[in-house]
Amino acid sequence: MARKKNSSADVTGPRIRAAALRLFARHGYAAVSMRQIATDVGVQAGTLYLYTADKQSLLFDLMHKHMQDLLAELDALPQAHNPLDGLEQFTRFHIRFHRARSDAVFISYMELRNLEPENFERIEAMRRQYEAHLGSLLARGKAERVFDISDTKLAAFAVIAMLTGVNTWFRESGRLSLAAVEDIYWHMVRKAVGA
Amino acid sequence: MARKKNSSADVTGPRIRAAALRLFARHGYAAVSMRQIATDVGVQAGTLYLYTADKQSLLFDLMHKHMQDLLAELDALPQAHNPLDGLEQFTRFHIRFHRARSDAVFISYMELRNLEPENFERIEAMRRQYEAHLGSLLARGKAERVFDISDTKLAAFAVIAMLTGVNTWFRESGRLSLAAVEDIYWHMVRKAVGA
Repeated sequence: MARKKNSSADVTGPRIRAAALRLFARHGYAAVSMRQIATDVGVQAGTLYLYTADKQSLLFDLMHKHMQDLLAELDALPQAHNPLDGLEQFTRFHIRFHRARSDAVFISYMELRNLEPENFERIEAMRRQYEAHLGSLLARGKAERVFDISDTKLAAFAVIAMLTGVNTWFRESGRLSLAAVEDIYWHMVRKAVGA
Repeated sequence: MARKKNSSADVTGPRIRAAALRLFARHGYAAVSMRQIATDVGVQAGTLYLYTADKQSLLFDLMHKHMQDLLAELDALPQAHNPLDGLEQFTRFHIRFHRARSDAVFISYMELRNLEPENFERIEAMRRQYEAHLGSLLARGKAERVFDISDTKLAAFAVIAMLTGVNTWFRESGRLSLAAVEDIYWHMVRKAVGA
């Protein structure tokens, strides 16, 4: 991404990305113009182009950053002692990470259709990497007979969909804390893989 | 919905809804104009207004029809003998129904944000009715000690999210038939509720 080489770069770049994320999530990528993003940030439309090549780059950057953070934080988790501990760690991590980024999760699913083919392929490869991490964890547990799973790939899809679903209903003001929700989902995930 | 009282009504109305569904799913509600829908159908923009009051009514009609069909088909399922049979029936029904309507499922999730408050409430009430059906099935199984569930409401959310997730990865040309996928998911759902 092209960046303006002056002191405001570190502030304006993140503000542009935050505005784009919010506006794309609210109205949809196709309905938002670069001019609207500039107005939201409080800069001239031309200024935007000092930070990003075009709207497609902005969308790709948002989705790429989201996947990069996801993979980096996954990688930074302490090494689990066994597949069962690893799955519990993954369950709690996935819920917390996605819950804290509901706009990014929403556009990462919804706006895949608006990525140009090459950008789509790069995001998809990162998503497959994340799924493969869970898949190999499940395969290890299956090999060690800790898990009872008929298809590790589908089990990974199922667990991820179940956990991401928390975003569609969880409210901070609801009857359960996020920690309580994590416990309940971990109980369900554990049983779903037969452990 | 206002309908033109002539012989073309039965053909044009469904064609308008089909075009709106496809265009909303492809570009997003906010980015699609009534004019674009008219062009896609091959009628004058003015003709559209003989069939629908405005774009919001069109969106609401699509989402309302989707939920109506879902609840009607759920209601038409044969009475299950017990909660376990009921849950298997629900699992297979949910996968098949949603798989056959991926555009409607996509906009039902994505375009909730674009429903006017009163329309949003009506759709949400129907969604809650569907979740409550599964919730009461799970509660019955829990009371009969067939299921081991700590929170039936969250279990219903988890099962629905897991099953709807099939739409994000299933392809007719893939390694598994939809019937095989149903079997694998039923195995996982059954274990997730401790049965």
